Amino acid sequence: MSLFITFEGSEGSGKSTQARLLYERLQAVGYPVILTREPGGTRISELIRRIVMDLRHTEMAPTTETLLFSAARAQLVSELIRPYLGTGGIVLCDRYADSTFAYQGYGLGRDLEELQAITTVATGGLQPDLTFYLDLPVEEGLRRKHLAKERAEQNAPGTTLSTPVEWNRLDARDLAYHQRVAAGFADLIRKEPQRWRIIPAEQPIPILAEQIAQEVAPLLKRVARLGEAL
Amino acid sequence: MSLFITFEGSEGSGKSTQARLLYERLQAVGYPVILTREPGGTRISELIRRIVMDLRHTEMAPTTETLLFSAARAQLVSELIRPYLGTGGIVLCDRYADSTFAYQGYGLGRDLEELQAITTVATGGLQPDLTFYLDLPVEEGLRRKHLAKERAEQNAPGTTLSTPVEWNRLDARDLAYHQRVAAGFADLIRKEPQRWRIIPAEQPIPILAEQIAQEVAPLLKRVARLGEAL
Repeated sequence: MSLFITFEGSEGSGKSTQARLLYERLQAVGYPVILTREPGGTRISELIRRIVMDLRHTEMAPTTETLLFSAARAQLVSELIRPYLGTGGIVLCDRYADSTFAYQGYGLGRDLEELQAITTVATGGLQPDLTFYLDLPVEEGLRRKHLAKERAEQNAPGTTLSTPVEWNRLDARDLAYHQRVAAGFADLIRKEPQRWRIIPAEQPIPILAEQIAQEVAPLLKRVARLGEAL
Repeated sequence: MSLFITFEGSEGSGKSTQARLLYERLQAVGYPVILTREPGGTRISELIRRIVMDLRHTEMAPTTETLLFSAARAQLVSELIRPYLGTGGIVLCDRYADSTFAYQGYGLGRDLEELQAITTVATGGLQPDLTFYLDLPVEEGLRRKHLAKERAEQNAPGTTLSTPVEWNRLDARDLAYHQRVAAGFADLIRKEPQRWRIIPAEQPIPILAEQIAQEVAPLLKRVARLGEAL
């Protein structure tokens, strides 16, 4: 009687754009829906985001990073996601626990069972009903993000974290790291194929939006529109 | 070949004062020693401290709190405590993992095994060689802290978190909570009596300092003074 959909993908794959387009589409036809993101989405989680994403924090230990992401997630799940799902609504989230496994586990080599234990504590076991993976070659994603950053800086020189295009501590890692992350997502998808939908992300934005909407359509019968009984 | 000593105690018990006095005494006689505190002690951990202690954050979920304390601890252990112990030095820490068990476990009713799992991740299993418990009746500790806070405000009206006397989100919990915490410490001490030293904290400060120094003396043979071979 509710729907929890997450968006994952390589850097610059356009998942935030697609999450927003799906949000607008569902809202336009009267579904109760919220859009949020990780790390962030609540006052406390956004404060944690600032610490974990800050480029100056080069001394951050991998364990600290994992625990900070998990703390931000715990607050988001407890304060926003669970209560909203409890009212029968749709929650769209830009990144969720899969990112922890891909980035900290496969990317940084953290023990996957340890990550699972912490994630279960942070989420209380809450899993998405559906997860989109926006699939883009790693080099292409990083190229897009670099380009977008240059454009943002030309428009507003000197701005960094507060611009729409964030270039953060994780983006700054090397190509090999981002390739391990991509291979990690592939592994996660193999383990739970029924939950994932792979969307080739090099197509035009409206085409991607249409594909995503079509995948979501069959699940919408679980959710009542505003003012409508199921 | 190194020494890790932690200080725990009820609110207002004077453990921070005693940690500082022991630090000064060891330093004066030529021991390599550092004094730190939890949550805090590194740049990143102090930023986490600000979030977790902020009185305005009334919506913080208990799981978020646990994960934030653990993240701050992970950074402190990785960046400061382990490296310093690795050089053969003495680390004094004002609060450590026992506070998580007492405050989040016994105080807030979080599952102790879950806390143990997260703590092991955060610390990599690092345990203190010796832990002092400054024992003060809960009511007396809270009364002292209230008094100190009033005094600080008279001297510097309007200041809050940046004053030497912090009145934080945890202090603000009710008496029953602080009594559960005290009972929790008693339980932790029963489980590992060889690691703990209980110091009745209602005695004058110099007497306490002397008792603590005497407990530490037998362990100092494990550490070389500066410029001295063991």
